[in-house]
Amino acid sequence: MYTSVLVINCGSSSIKYALVSERREDRIFGLAENLGSPEARIKGITTGGEALEISMPNADHEKALEIILERISHHNPQAIGHRVVHGGTLTKAELLTPEIIDRIREATPLAPLHNPAHLVGITATMRLFPELPQVAVFDTAFHQTMPAHAYRYALPKFLYTMHNVRRYGFHGTSHAYVSERGSELAGSFKQGGWLTAHLGNGSSTCAIWNGQSVDTSMGLTPLEGVVMGTRSGDVDPSIHRFLASNLGWDIYKIDKMLNNESGLLGLSDLSNDMRTLIEASEQGNEDATLAIEVFCYRLAKSLAALSCGLPQLNGLFFTGGIGENSAFIREKTVSYLPHFGFNLSKEKNDGLKRGTEGRIDVGNGPQIWVVPTDEEGRIAKETQSVVEQGVSAAVKKSDVVEEAVA
Amino acid sequence: MYTSVLVINCGSSSIKYALVSERREDRIFGLAENLGSPEARIKGITTGGEALEISMPNADHEKALEIILERISHHNPQAIGHRVVHGGTLTKAELLTPEIIDRIREATPLAPLHNPAHLVGITATMRLFPELPQVAVFDTAFHQTMPAHAYRYALPKFLYTMHNVRRYGFHGTSHAYVSERGSELAGSFKQGGWLTAHLGNGSSTCAIWNGQSVDTSMGLTPLEGVVMGTRSGDVDPSIHRFLASNLGWDIYKIDKMLNNESGLLGLSDLSNDMRTLIEASEQGNEDATLAIEVFCYRLAKSLAALSCGLPQLNGLFFTGGIGENSAFIREKTVSYLPHFGFNLSKEKNDGLKRGTEGRIDVGNGPQIWVVPTDEEGRIAKETQSVVEQGVSAAVKKSDVVEEAVA
Repeated sequence: MYTSVLVINCGSSSIKYALVSERREDRIFGLAENLGSPEARIKGITTGGEALEISMPNADHEKALEIILERISHHNPQAIGHRVVHGGTLTKAELLTPEIIDRIREATPLAPLHNPAHLVGITATMRLFPELPQVAVFDTAFHQTMPAHAYRYALPKFLYTMHNVRRYGFHGTSHAYVSERGSELAGSFKQGGWLTAHLGNGSSTCAIWNGQSVDTSMGLTPLEGVVMGTRSGDVDPSIHRFLASNLGWDIYKIDKMLNNESGLLGLSDLSNDMRTLIEASEQGNEDATLAIEVFCYRLAKSLAALSCGLPQLNGLFFTGGIGENSAFIREKTVSYLPHFGFNLSKEKNDGLKRGTEGRIDVGNGPQIWVVPTDEEGRIAKETQSVVEQGVSAAVKKSDVVEEAVA
Repeated sequence: MYTSVLVINCGSSSIKYALVSERREDRIFGLAENLGSPEARIKGITTGGEALEISMPNADHEKALEIILERISHHNPQAIGHRVVHGGTLTKAELLTPEIIDRIREATPLAPLHNPAHLVGITATMRLFPELPQVAVFDTAFHQTMPAHAYRYALPKFLYTMHNVRRYGFHGTSHAYVSERGSELAGSFKQGGWLTAHLGNGSSTCAIWNGQSVDTSMGLTPLEGVVMGTRSGDVDPSIHRFLASNLGWDIYKIDKMLNNESGLLGLSDLSNDMRTLIEASEQGNEDATLAIEVFCYRLAKSLAALSCGLPQLNGLFFTGGIGENSAFIREKTVSYLPHFGFNLSKEKNDGLKRGTEGRIDVGNGPQIWVVPTDEEGRIAKETQSVVEQGVSAAVKKSDVVEEAVA
């Protein structure tokens, strides 16, 4: 059991942190934001469960990390686990060595906004806490078990062999946690075929066979796949040529539009927040109604498509803010999957307490579960595991040396 | 019954033509190619079934059409049916009037290569044969019955309301013919839910409910959807930003790559022709094997996704060059659809004579049929129908006038 791992997620001007202890309810967490600006501050929850706000004008990542660690140092963290969006073709969490840091740097063209920010955080924590083992946990790693026919695009071969253009997939930490926890709840313990729907402001789906990812909706970047808060998901890849020819837009303007001004926000012309849209729809807003309908229909299409990667379908897990909290979205999505034998129970679905685990189907068809995700817990667990393996490998190595000497 | 409709399909430097008579086997057809160049010529089949080749150096569309009509004039065609790729939001075939020609011109931004060539052909035939009724039959029209949640993209709303950005879908003539003919063979006569897979050098899938298209894989342009000969089909829409940032490519170079250098050709680095790839794969070519696998897996994913639009699934129709002729591709594709109850019969599938209609499943699951497409026949039928409606409307109008006079 891990008792204290500090989990860090560095963005370009923010740091999310959590001190993960044995019991989930004891977790200390917070967010440093507006870094590098006069409004830089930390907002969080203390050990005693009280709200905390610290102003630290113009603090950078390193200064913020120093303050964060100072406040939690009496908890004696045993390791630091960094969430890293893109690990290229790395297949698992790794102890941070110069080689692994190079691999993260090499993957920067694949995640130009995220990886440089992660490297800033990693560099700062290594300088501040050289004695603590540090581990990188990658969003992409879980999906490295996909077969080639799922991860290759129908593009000229050299784009794959020379420029690493392929499907990577993201949200791997969440899909891994939810499918493992969910199959445990269902009594199948990683066996069989499962679909996961991680529905937050970013959303993705995944097909898992015997505990391994075999396909996922996100691709080279987190833009591909289902409809998200502000991201379009799949769209005709000639949209760029159309917008360039007819509106004179360039690639960067189009990419920004697809990432930041599309999705639920674009369709509804109102909000990227599903709660706002459901309220607006109830009050007769037709654009909000359409946005919800497109979201659920396209999500169902993605899940149906991923079923092609599973020889057998044991069930479906909903997670993420929308997946955990909206019975309405779960019901509508399953209603668009009429050919798989799902039998959602309206009573169980509507009755499930927000944020809790529970089964929401009846009968003998594929099961349907809600499984709240725990990315921080999973990162802490993987961090702990890498550190223990490192220790055990070091012990074995010294055994070998001693044996050789003896 | 129609006895002779001239069907014309004008490309930028070519004209495909067919004189469609009552009996399919009597069809006269040919291709004028290299128009505007010294190599301009017509290759075709005469009434007697013999091969024909006419050299006509530097002939343009009008000259070629003049020669074509001269050769078939003794068959006394009653009308000309033009295949038009993009009809915008027109919902059916239309008699060519100045208004309809304007609508085709207005749809040019949506099909910049095809619609201008069609207009050249239409203008020339109207000048040459002013006495013949002429009809435009649109590839997009059949899909105008899709619901909004299937045709809207998750993009900013103004791109739809002001610039007509939406899913249109193509190959409508083929999907319409095959689903109508197929459901007739199956004894359901347009009732129920059917999937069609039109697999040629361009490929698309369609979901049809009670005879109407409810969703399709192609989108704003014919690039979206499944893997094709040289087209990528679906790909992460951030591929453009990635290639611009890392390789310095511009939108037009990327769009050309996605349309002309991708698909089976790009994956295999060998050929866009499925027959060549199957042979190469049998001889151990791994890239060819992967290209075939990606083609079938992605096709299965597309069909599974479209099933979400059908309350009930009666069966699946294969058509187009690959769909009609490759038992291997049909079998592999169905093997990736394990959750729908399909039961393909290897014996029936392998035993079906090329180019013939036939059922290839056994048991009580959704049916699987091969239905050779007949786009020319369908265009002729729709042309005839539009002309007859025009005549009957004119008759009714004169009745009304006479009644008013009387």
